[in-house]
Amino acid sequence: MDDLPRVDPSRGLIGLNIIQPSSDNTFMTFKVKRLLALKRSRYQEIVVADIEDFGRSLILDNYIQSSEVDEYIYHESLVHPAMVAHPNPRKVLIIGGGEGATLREVLKHECVEKAVMVDIDREVVEMARKYLEKWHQGAFDDPRAEVVIADGLKYVREVKEKFDVIVLDLTDPYGIEISKKLYSEEFYRAIYNILTDEGLMVTQAGSSFFFEKVYDYVLRSVKSVFPIVVEYNVWVPVFGYANNFIVGSKKYDPLKLGVEEVDNILAKRGVKTRFYNGKTHVALMYTPIYRASGAIKR
Amino acid sequence: MDDLPRVDPSRGLIGLNIIQPSSDNTFMTFKVKRLLALKRSRYQEIVVADIEDFGRSLILDNYIQSSEVDEYIYHESLVHPAMVAHPNPRKVLIIGGGEGATLREVLKHECVEKAVMVDIDREVVEMARKYLEKWHQGAFDDPRAEVVIADGLKYVREVKEKFDVIVLDLTDPYGIEISKKLYSEEFYRAIYNILTDEGLMVTQAGSSFFFEKVYDYVLRSVKSVFPIVVEYNVWVPVFGYANNFIVGSKKYDPLKLGVEEVDNILAKRGVKTRFYNGKTHVALMYTPIYRASGAIKR
Amino acid sequence: MDDLPRVDPSRGLIGLNIIQPSSDNTFMTFKVKRLLALKRSRYQEIVVADIEDFGRSLILDNYIQSSEVDEYIYHESLVHPAMVAHPNPRKVLIIGGGEGATLREVLKHECVEKAVMVDIDREVVEMARKYLEKWHQGAFDDPRAEVVIADGLKYVREVKEKFDVIVLDLTDPYGIEISKKLYSEEFYRAIYNILTDEGLMVTQAGSSFFFEKVYDYVLRSVKSVFPIVVEYNVWVPVFGYANNFIVGSKKYDPLKLGVEEVDNILAKRGVKTRFYNGKTHVALMYTPIYRASGAIKR
Amino acid sequence: MDDLPRVDPSRGLIGLNIIQPSSDNTFMTFKVKRLLALKRSRYQEIVVADIEDFGRSLILDNYIQSSEVDEYIYHESLVHPAMVAHPNPRKVLIIGGGEGATLREVLKHECVEKAVMVDIDREVVEMARKYLEKWHQGAFDDPRAEVVIADGLKYVREVKEKFDVIVLDLTDPYGIEISKKLYSEEFYRAIYNILTDEGLMVTQAGSSFFFEKVYDYVLRSVKSVFPIVVEYNVWVPVFGYANNFIVGSKKYDPLKLGVEEVDNILAKRGVKTRFYNGKTHVALMYTPIYRASGAIKR
Repeated sequence: MDDLPRVDPSRGLIGLNIIQPSSDNTFMTFKVKRLLALKRSRYQEIVVADIEDFGRSLILDNYIQSSEVDEYIYHESLVHPAMVAHPNPRKVLIIGGGEGATLREVLKHECVEKAVMVDIDREVVEMARKYLEKWHQGAFDDPRAEVVIADGLKYVREVKEKFDVIVLDLTDPYGIEISKKLYSEEFYRAIYNILTDEGLMVTQAGSSFFFEKVYDYVLRSVKSVFPIVVEYNVWVPVFGYANNFIVGSKKYDPLKLGVEEVDNILAKRGVKTRFYNGKTHVALMYTPIYRASGAIKR
Repeated sequence: MDDLPRVDPSRGLIGLNIIQPSSDNTFMTFKVKRLLALKRSRYQEIVVADIEDFGRSLILDNYIQSSEVDEYIYHESLVHPAMVAHPNPRKVLIIGGGEGATLREVLKHECVEKAVMVDIDREVVEMARKYLEKWHQGAFDDPRAEVVIADGLKYVREVKEKFDVIVLDLTDPYGIEISKKLYSEEFYRAIYNILTDEGLMVTQAGSSFFFEKVYDYVLRSVKSVFPIVVEYNVWVPVFGYANNFIVGSKKYDPLKLGVEEVDNILAKRGVKTRFYNGKTHVALMYTPIYRASGAIKR
Repeated sequence: MDDLPRVDPSRGLIGLNIIQPSSDNTFMTFKVKRLLALKRSRYQEIVVADIEDFGRSLILDNYIQSSEVDEYIYHESLVHPAMVAHPNPRKVLIIGGGEGATLREVLKHECVEKAVMVDIDREVVEMARKYLEKWHQGAFDDPRAEVVIADGLKYVREVKEKFDVIVLDLTDPYGIEISKKLYSEEFYRAIYNILTDEGLMVTQAGSSFFFEKVYDYVLRSVKSVFPIVVEYNVWVPVFGYANNFIVGSKKYDPLKLGVEEVDNILAKRGVKTRFYNGKTHVALMYTPIYRASGAIKR
Repeated sequence: MDDLPRVDPSRGLIGLNIIQPSSDNTFMTFKVKRLLALKRSRYQEIVVADIEDFGRSLILDNYIQSSEVDEYIYHESLVHPAMVAHPNPRKVLIIGGGEGATLREVLKHECVEKAVMVDIDREVVEMARKYLEKWHQGAFDDPRAEVVIADGLKYVREVKEKFDVIVLDLTDPYGIEISKKLYSEEFYRAIYNILTDEGLMVTQAGSSFFFEKVYDYVLRSVKSVFPIVVEYNVWVPVFGYANNFIVGSKKYDPLKLGVEEVDNILAKRGVKTRFYNGKTHVALMYTPIYRASGAIKR
């Protein structure tokens, strides 16, 4: 019977897979090795799984938020360009970022005295504490960190403090209902109001290639509030696309930083990274912005 | 922002799915609602999941073995034709059948005094006890039942008893290594030797449509050992195909039973079913055997 | 470099595939070997492809209508139970059935003097003439056949003739817009009016397992018009499920026909088949109706 | 019947799709709008299709080679860094590149007097002439161009001329048999021998993220032959990953070119591009190399 046909049960695209939309027509599939948690919180479906090629991963409403293998690419690219553009960021606010990795990157800057992280979904933060140790690496328990479970929009409207840098680490503007209002002009105006006069903010902005209209909406919203706006993007393997980021700034421009300048700032602040450095900073600033209608050269 | 494009995260074929081969080229996908267990035993990968359309399901090495919604179709069709063909089955042997549903159907016949179930994988049986209560319905604890964790081939070679009916509820002959030898002529000869002179056996036999050559191998194996051989098949929704069964018998022929005869036997033995009755029996016997090369009319 | 990893480009579920919904949550995938036509008609998207396991296939709006390998199972099961139940069908009407295979089966009955086939989409019929020779086998050119391109509902309302048997070979009630009105009580009343006093009609009715509510709607519609209603179903491999059929009859009941009776009628009328015969007829009538809420035994 | 459930046949991941492996475990799916050609040449399966998000696309053995929407990103990034690094490239050799887009980019440099393109598969080139006009844009008929249908390895061994720049635009080293030998040390030695003393070559090198071992094999092969080796990578949307490129050079180093220098060279040679310019060049050189084992910062 050895020569009889048989299906190989170990090969890819059989068994348990996660199918993730890149757009309405293009999808990625990931083979699941192990499922650690699947639950519906008040706000979203939360999955923690070990997947082939990417290891431990957090999935919210069917979108992979980050994976063990490449989360540092996303989180370093999100945090450091805005942080190095500010000469002395001492107070930092993070909206979203439930995994704790954005907080981790912010706290690497020794000049930071206080970092407040506001996430709406307590269950995501609890999942992160339990399953995503490689992400937060204890950042939640850093004495400079404060974790608040609250609606980001409400928090931003009511908080009395001002911040040097604000990092918006949200689910995509097109994917999930709960974060839509956090990409509006109204929200950015509230952000503007709690930034110091030298402050800047950065938001992740999904994919300008697959969701060009949504991206343009976000870009317009930022531009209608901030005098200095900088776009950049970087390929994040587990997303399958270059993730976009938009900086809104009152005074400082990340575009103006050169290779040595960035490397000096990182050294002075004791920041150790895996992906980001002076050359990476320039690459982020110089890489064209991908759009379905044609790349935008710098 | 209400008119912006967005992907609907709740729609099908997004998120967590099980992709199951029907053949090397045709596949079924099932949306997973909840994953209850995923572990690798010594013999196979065992998954218990709740899936859309089919509810709680047991998956071994990427093949769904049975689902809450339609397991009774498979298990009743496997067990009762052979059981009613025997005038007084008192001792019954089951090889495989870890979910406990085959045992449940066998024990419905009040004439049965002893039913031995032999499964190789202790962890499947433990999973069934824990997660598949709707399958076994306490059958494991029936005083007439005896559950043995052992290699079926070895058990059949060594057991000293004789049985009236033997039911082979195994994983498919093409899918999984561990059950291949349990479809060989050698194995059926061992089965023959532990049947009484009036005994009959039945085996599930996968899909004669998608795996015609494998099916023919099994059919030839049974025919080389038993004087009376009866094939039948019935669509099992979660498999996506008509599942084949083959009876090997020393004396009695299930083909000869009419509608009333079957209904009378079931009534006499106190057997209550959801799918199988006299008319179903005749339908099973009269439905053509599906093959890729053309159906075989009766 | 021989020991380097590589992906095997010939294996299943890579390359060109057709993904077909069984429901909103369960899907089948078919590997495409060759695409012969893909065009959008006024009514629907029409694809003709050669696929693995099933050969040449017609796909309308992403649903496979029939395949070379198993179309005879569907078409014989659709046509013959109603045809044999009528003692002498001379005039037959087919609504839909663009492939020409339903016409082919009807014309096998030598007693048929005239068969009118009414399909709304000229392009489907032209595709069938060009690519589906194994389906129609010249039936379109039989002197007893008349092919009309028209809206079935309009045709049925306006035609002056009466028919002995009417066969409704339509796209599914849930899948495609154009056929929805052809499953309504209003339509069946119009059908009733153009049947002779001894006439009967049969309709395909999709899947009572995956679309139970839609099926119940169709069943209620037929029952509200015809005194005798018979349901049956049979697994069609390329659909992945048992396809349902419903007979509505004024006088004759297919349930009452026995094995020999059917075989005699087929012999007398010179009907040669591959799947259907007396035993198949009884199997069709005796097989339980599959439903997600539980099978309905006969 | 309006409130009955129905499947929306126009939504994504239903109907005709191309499923493409990113690795053995991660896949991308693309919705097919129209299939223009599907044929098996002597060397490979060739598909030309219009797909959602990406438009017209060429697919060889299930891997998308390039799409209408983003081919310029791949082809400009492949060709120009090596071309601008050479002070005066007059004779250029292309191996592969059947779409004609690499030839198009090479010919944009007005200093080029002769460009020889050698592709093994005549049918790919014919397909490109017929279906991929946006790729070649008439380059095949440029008087400076010479198209040779031949085995690249054989051509390189036997040609008597020397070239200033050689561009290797091949199918991936892991995907398709026919190009494997074109990534070996032996082949690069032959390339070295037909380069002038100031010459450089560039090869596409698949994905260092998904196929790190294969990439390392290629990198080692280039390093064992050339004194100057430069790696770079850029996200190509239709691939779903950052595509790698490796330059092997005898004298000039693309790493040393600054923003203005590149822009001046392009202007002097009359090169108009959509993605590549001085800033893009620096971004390509400064972007870390993605690897599953961790990104390599520059």
